[in-house]
Amino acid sequence: MISVTLIGAGNVAQHLYKAFSACKEVHINQWHNRRLEQLQMFKNDVDIVDDITLLKEADIYIIAISDDAVAKLSEQLPFSDKLVVHTSGSVNLHHLDKKNRRGVFYPLQTFSKDAELNFSDVPICIEVEHKADYHVLKDLANAITSPYHRVNSPQRAALHLAAVFVNNFTNQLYRVAHEITESEGVDFNILKPLIKETAKKLDTLSPYMAQTGPAKRNDKKTIKKHLASLDKDIHKDIYKLLTKAIKETHGTSASSAFKKPNSK
Amino acid sequence: MISVTLIGAGNVAQHLYKAFSACKEVHINQWHNRRLEQLQMFKNDVDIVDDITLLKEADIYIIAISDDAVAKLSEQLPFSDKLVVHTSGSVNLHHLDKKNRRGVFYPLQTFSKDAELNFSDVPICIEVEHKADYHVLKDLANAITSPYHRVNSPQRAALHLAAVFVNNFTNQLYRVAHEITESEGVDFNILKPLIKETAKKLDTLSPYMAQTGPAKRNDKKTIKKHLASLDKDIHKDIYKLLTKAIKETHGTSASSAFKKPNSK
Repeated sequence: MISVTLIGAGNVAQHLYKAFSACKEVHINQWHNRRLEQLQMFKNDVDIVDDITLLKEADIYIIAISDDAVAKLSEQLPFSDKLVVHTSGSVNLHHLDKKNRRGVFYPLQTFSKDAELNFSDVPICIEVEHKADYHVLKDLANAITSPYHRVNSPQRAALHLAAVFVNNFTNQLYRVAHEITESEGVDFNILKPLIKETAKKLDTLSPYMAQTGPAKRNDKKTIKKHLASLDKDIHKDIYKLLTKAIKETHGTSASSAFKKPNSK
Repeated sequence: MISVTLIGAGNVAQHLYKAFSACKEVHINQWHNRRLEQLQMFKNDVDIVDDITLLKEADIYIIAISDDAVAKLSEQLPFSDKLVVHTSGSVNLHHLDKKNRRGVFYPLQTFSKDAELNFSDVPICIEVEHKADYHVLKDLANAITSPYHRVNSPQRAALHLAAVFVNNFTNQLYRVAHEITESEGVDFNILKPLIKETAKKLDTLSPYMAQTGPAKRNDKKTIKKHLASLDKDIHKDIYKLLTKAIKETHGTSASSAFKKPNSK
């Protein structure tokens, strides 16, 4: 049995709470948040607490609060030499106060307040200061059926940055597509099977191998037609830049002579 | 029973052949390709033909060849007043020779040579010159279990353009993420659940509502850190431009005063 104290009341904290509650191998000792009203609805199921000095003994303390608040909160913890982890993709391990054994338990997924999420689809990136702590965090990931990966700080930073591209930026491309279809009164939903298949294709092909379309073929006629039909300047700019990027990657542009060797 | 003559041997033609072959409601009369060797492996199952003058009577003739070749081939058809459709997202209906009844049967999906594709995940965008022909094409889509949508030319063009954003450009963002993770020796596969969830989120949220991340929060510290850690100029450019686009969409930039009203 792993005893866990959860700190914070945001999306990640709430999803972790649900996952931990649902498994036998984890006991949630306490759930702390500065503003107790955000935890009131859970008060019959777990010991909720707003006074940080009242935190009791636990195997793992999980700080799931906004990035900027992690360092200060970790200083306020009224104990030392315990395993304290944060859940952020971008906060340095060393921003946690060094009086405790530090670690990171970073769930690499997009969390919505309402959407149900199966934790077997939530890879956990684990970083630890002390080797011995890896196993506890690994067991915790296992308990909630999450795949886990040991990473170092630069690797976690790379994953967090890459996640912005495949999540936030990809979603913005969906938004552009929504604007384009809406402007002609055509249903955006028609694109959804294509959106899903584009993601699913990576099961069998690398992004490099999966690429198709006018930019890869250097089909100037279609590219010109597309650019002419875009109304908004920012849509044109995105079209031009990503077309240029595809051409560079696939050697269909003049600058391809300088292509990196690892273009597999 | 709908009788179909298929013209072309590329990805789309081959996937349509498989789908039509698998359903009782469709009979493939003939399969034509200029170079017969590309169809040799099907010769025991269907009447293959390279001489266009030998095409026989059929309910629908489907031209699934490269965009640039559609017009010329349609001129060479040795008959008139038949229903002739192409399968392209971007070729104008009127590029088909007017001696026949013209239409479009555009499967809005990404096709790979080897990947199995369920046609229930392939929306068919139907465009017709003569209203009466809509029902035949609708029945054909129904036969292969595809959802279908009647569109006009500007709507089909908008869908084709939007598809470039959600397929080719999104895939290029996956490629950038692959380069970022590779540069730190971390496994790109860790990102795949996030990639899939980003696509799946659209089942319940619009792209506007689904957006999260540093650009939307206008989290300057993280944005600065991300930009500093990107090695390639083109990656920096993509990061800057899509961050700008998200800020404009979500009113976190100065130019948001000019935001379009339909930002739901």
